[in-house]
Amino acid sequence: MQHSAQARDDMAQAACIALERLRARSPRVHCITNAVAQNFTANVLLALGCVPSMTLSAEEVAGFVAGAQALLVNLGTFDAERRQASELAIKTAAEKKIPWVLDPVFVDRSRTRADFARMLIRRSPNVVRLNHAEFSALAGKTPSVEALAAFARENRTVMGLSGETDLVTDGERHATVANGHPLMSRVTAMGCAASALTAACLAVEPDTFRAAAAALVIIGVAGEVAAEKAKGPGSFAVAIIDALYNLDAATLKARAKVS
Amino acid sequence: MQHSAQARDDMAQAACIALERLRARSPRVHCITNAVAQNFTANVLLALGCVPSMTLSAEEVAGFVAGAQALLVNLGTFDAERRQASELAIKTAAEKKIPWVLDPVFVDRSRTRADFARMLIRRSPNVVRLNHAEFSALAGKTPSVEALAAFARENRTVMGLSGETDLVTDGERHATVANGHPLMSRVTAMGCAASALTAACLAVEPDTFRAAAAALVIIGVAGEVAAEKAKGPGSFAVAIIDALYNLDAATLKARAKVS
Amino acid sequence: MQHSAQARDDMAQAACIALERLRARSPRVHCITNAVAQNFTANVLLALGCVPSMTLSAEEVAGFVAGAQALLVNLGTFDAERRQASELAIKTAAEKKIPWVLDPVFVDRSRTRADFARMLIRRSPNVVRLNHAEFSALAGKTPSVEALAAFARENRTVMGLSGETDLVTDGERHATVANGHPLMSRVTAMGCAASALTAACLAVEPDTFRAAAAALVIIGVAGEVAAEKAKGPGSFAVAIIDALYNLDAATLKARAKVS
Repeated sequence: MQHSAQARDDMAQAACIALERLRARSPRVHCITNAVAQNFTANVLLALGCVPSMTLSAEEVAGFVAGAQALLVNLGTFDAERRQASELAIKTAAEKKIPWVLDPVFVDRSRTRADFARMLIRRSPNVVRLNHAEFSALAGKTPSVEALAAFARENRTVMGLSGETDLVTDGERHATVANGHPLMSRVTAMGCAASALTAACLAVEPDTFRAAAAALVIIGVAGEVAAEKAKGPGSFAVAIIDALYNLDAATLKARAKVS
Repeated sequence: MQHSAQARDDMAQAACIALERLRARSPRVHCITNAVAQNFTANVLLALGCVPSMTLSAEEVAGFVAGAQALLVNLGTFDAERRQASELAIKTAAEKKIPWVLDPVFVDRSRTRADFARMLIRRSPNVVRLNHAEFSALAGKTPSVEALAAFARENRTVMGLSGETDLVTDGERHATVANGHPLMSRVTAMGCAASALTAACLAVEPDTFRAAAAALVIIGVAGEVAAEKAKGPGSFAVAIIDALYNLDAATLKARAKVS
Repeated sequence: MQHSAQARDDMAQAACIALERLRARSPRVHCITNAVAQNFTANVLLALGCVPSMTLSAEEVAGFVAGAQALLVNLGTFDAERRQASELAIKTAAEKKIPWVLDPVFVDRSRTRADFARMLIRRSPNVVRLNHAEFSALAGKTPSVEALAAFARENRTVMGLSGETDLVTDGERHATVANGHPLMSRVTAMGCAASALTAACLAVEPDTFRAAAAALVIIGVAGEVAAEKAKGPGSFAVAIIDALYNLDAATLKARAKVS
């Protein structure tokens, strides 16, 4: 594990680079995501210069993924159409070497969904981004650095765990991200959007661990900026879109709390 | 019917208690709702501390309902998936004694949907929340206190009628709620969110009549607070989420217009 | 082609008349549109006094269209349900002489969808509203006044091309609309909402060419007003809804950039 000031500067730098590349390259990010999150997710991606697409149909999804630079598979409001779309999309991503992120939403609420998520994890998502309850449901143990690292090694993936402090690990390297604000948990689809942003960062940063940490720094810092002006979760949801759009390297460097 | 000051204080008190309990208990509210309303409904529930879920799939919906404390069945953008989900969800709600609300959106525009709504009403929703045109389509008569009370008694339910003045009745007790603002009708899904909030209140208030009235007071007062700062329906939709988040007992007591 | 000051005044006047009629007549606009756009589209229509509906189910869509004054068919997030809904809706629109708009979203990303769009264009949409990439995919040539006019004549439709400057043509008459703001391309569903507004204008203005130009002037001017207060795409999306709600003839006349 890297330490203190150096690790912090290194990860803040990774976030700055990712942010700049998103704006310069406008990666296409295909999102198989839940019905509640689609609009907010698209607006988060657009605010950062990315091009979102959200098509689910079996006829078209492979084509959209093949033309994209990253893929999100989010299991919220899961149904037969999304299941089939996920399988086709992941197959295309594997063939075309397009990086993808799995967000196993609410696997703690549905055994069917947890089983499906485990099957998808065997298909090697580049990143699995989830919260504490979801990790516990998938891994059968409470989240800790050790449990998360073991899960990452076993499944050859990078884990991004959201919480009061976020934790990112590829099994060898670890980063904690202490940015963010409690209002983020009061806006629907905030975690879903963070996963979409993680996918976007994978499109512009080949080091998956750095990409995942960068995404969580970017959304967390934007959340802090937004919270300073927000009067509640309604204005917060608006302000975080503005904050992502206006975010700059100086703000990222000044505010990043990574270790 | 209770009268004047006492009734008003009693219902304002019911709204205060419901608000406090929502925040303290964070009930899970499963929503089978229309595609237009999903995001706004989730944000209204989250602003008040509830935990929304929106899954529709036949495989999972029963599990989500079984793990929830209340259920909303909203008939907007109705389709085969939502029809099946409704039937499974209501069956689970009946088995587990989970209260549920029916919102028969646009039954005045579709005979198929009106027939389905009538069938659902026979399955004893705790509350039916609708507008004037929807009541007329279902009951075959224009809404009045008498017509609404008769409908409530016949169907052993509580009716919540939205309009310039809202009307709540269980067939014996009646309350009118004169809170709210005209901008509420200019934001999509406002009525849908009110129905979701009614479901949430059922999770924390065993007296269905009081729960339904409390929900309409809460959303109506929040609408008034929001309108004071809004410049149009866009900023109003944001401000009402903030207002719900910041709402307190003093504001509810000062503003409640119940009789 | 009409010229300069006269053409400008004439089109600004068309926008003023359309705006006034939308508010006075509250047309019902049925929208078959993508999952990302449904909420924002409904709020744009409501802000202008229209009554949106979004039902897709094969059982109900014909009834909703028959009761509406205009129809939007938007091909975003296209799937089997939307395909069937489109066919039923267009059949009803033809029978009842209800005007309709086609928005062939992302036909540049999917050959299947482009083929379906071409088939729909043979069924005589009153307006086809699209962007440069979508026109190129459908017409096999880069957009120009001549290419657009030829396409309009061949297909007996009115073309509305969005871009830095919008172009409207029925094959004989042409208008360019230079209103709008770059933030419009940073909010998801902005083009989809412009198409829905075009459909709404068809409900109140029998001259299709004028209706299409009016819609693009209205949304473009609202975008400019919104941009003056917005701090990014989040607040812009809110402000444009407010701007549409508050828009008046004086603002339209002062700001319309039509030639």
